[in-house]
Amino acid sequence: MFSGAQISLYPMSDDFVGIILGAVKALDPYRENFRIETDDLSTLLVGPPEQLFPAMRDLFVHAANAGKHCVLAATVSRGCPGEPDDPICTPNSELGNQAPLADRIAAAKAAVASAPVTGLTVAAQFSLYPLGAAHHMDEIYGCIDFVKQSGVFDRSKNFCTKLRGDAGAVFAAMSEAFLRFGAPEGHVALDLKVSAHSPTPV
Amino acid sequence: MFSGAQISLYPMSDDFVGIILGAVKALDPYRENFRIETDDLSTLLVGPPEQLFPAMRDLFVHAANAGKHCVLAATVSRGCPGEPDDPICTPNSELGNQAPLADRIAAAKAAVASAPVTGLTVAAQFSLYPLGAAHHMDEIYGCIDFVKQSGVFDRSKNFCTKLRGDAGAVFAAMSEAFLRFGAPEGHVALDLKVSAHSPTPV
Repeated sequence: MFSGAQISLYPMSDDFVGIILGAVKALDPYRENFRIETDDLSTLLVGPPEQLFPAMRDLFVHAANAGKHCVLAATVSRGCPGEPDDPICTPNSELGNQAPLADRIAAAKAAVASAPVTGLTVAAQFSLYPLGAAHHMDEIYGCIDFVKQSGVFDRSKNFCTKLRGDAGAVFAAMSEAFLRFGAPEGHVALDLKVSAHSPTPV
Repeated sequence: MFSGAQISLYPMSDDFVGIILGAVKALDPYRENFRIETDDLSTLLVGPPEQLFPAMRDLFVHAANAGKHCVLAATVSRGCPGEPDDPICTPNSELGNQAPLADRIAAAKAAVASAPVTGLTVAAQFSLYPLGAAHHMDEIYGCIDFVKQSGVFDRSKNFCTKLRGDAGAVFAAMSEAFLRFGAPEGHVALDLKVSAHSPTPV
């Protein structure tokens, strides 16, 4: 298994460098479990799939605490056949995504209900891409069923699903979508944007 | 066929609203061919697949002309089975993506070589997702072959490919990746970020 994310933080502020450098400290507790590399476009996290969204949540909440309009965008991937297996990516727990769709939806809902509360309200949208599967739309529709019952569903949009709620539940919902849908050892990618402090919430 | 993009513009500036509102004028020439809807996270463009990247290029170049660090992020899609066919999305020309991979690579290179020059240097990264195909990695590797010969290839990264060059050629290369790879009537998604005026080019 190879899993990780390319993440980018966009503070809409003249002080974007200061906000980014301050927020990166939030990744410190994750550093021993992740390989982390940065260039001018994004920061790569490679590590256990179930720690990717908590790490992104902590980074984003820290950045948004500056009070400026801020967006985190990420491309998250597991099981890409073009990447070598990496022991650092071994899941810490049984993800349970071999189970029937209905069971996975129930487990995903429970995980979101028990997510930590951060106090930061965010809007988000994401797209799930289960690759190489003949029935990829079944997994997408199953995932959409879960999201609609997750408590943070906002609306369906073309090409993506929009969420709104506390950052804890919103990142947990995207994590569940990523971990529990698509084949267990299959190639799954997820594209996301999370926004806080927008001047024009819709 | 249904095709379109969810696009977001992130100017790293206290004047982000002014920069975005100014740049949106660059979409005016495309309005008669597209359906355009905006919310707090992104702007939806629905229209002919081969006009999506020129529209995004013009929007981004206009925004970057403000001289601030600026990023455009987009999720582009064609052929999604969950969307209705829409006459507005009918391609204006034969895309030729039924041809053998080698022929498609040659045609894509020629298209990039003849792209307009904007005078704006950008860095970009993108991921191509040909969905529902048993041989999705063949199309991905074919696309990577093209990009490496495109003149704007920078490097391979985990989960994405990085480009650098004039915005005209960079957007043309991503357009070719989107139009010519993956099944002609298949479901193809492309996730991209384009950046200008970064204080830390790598």
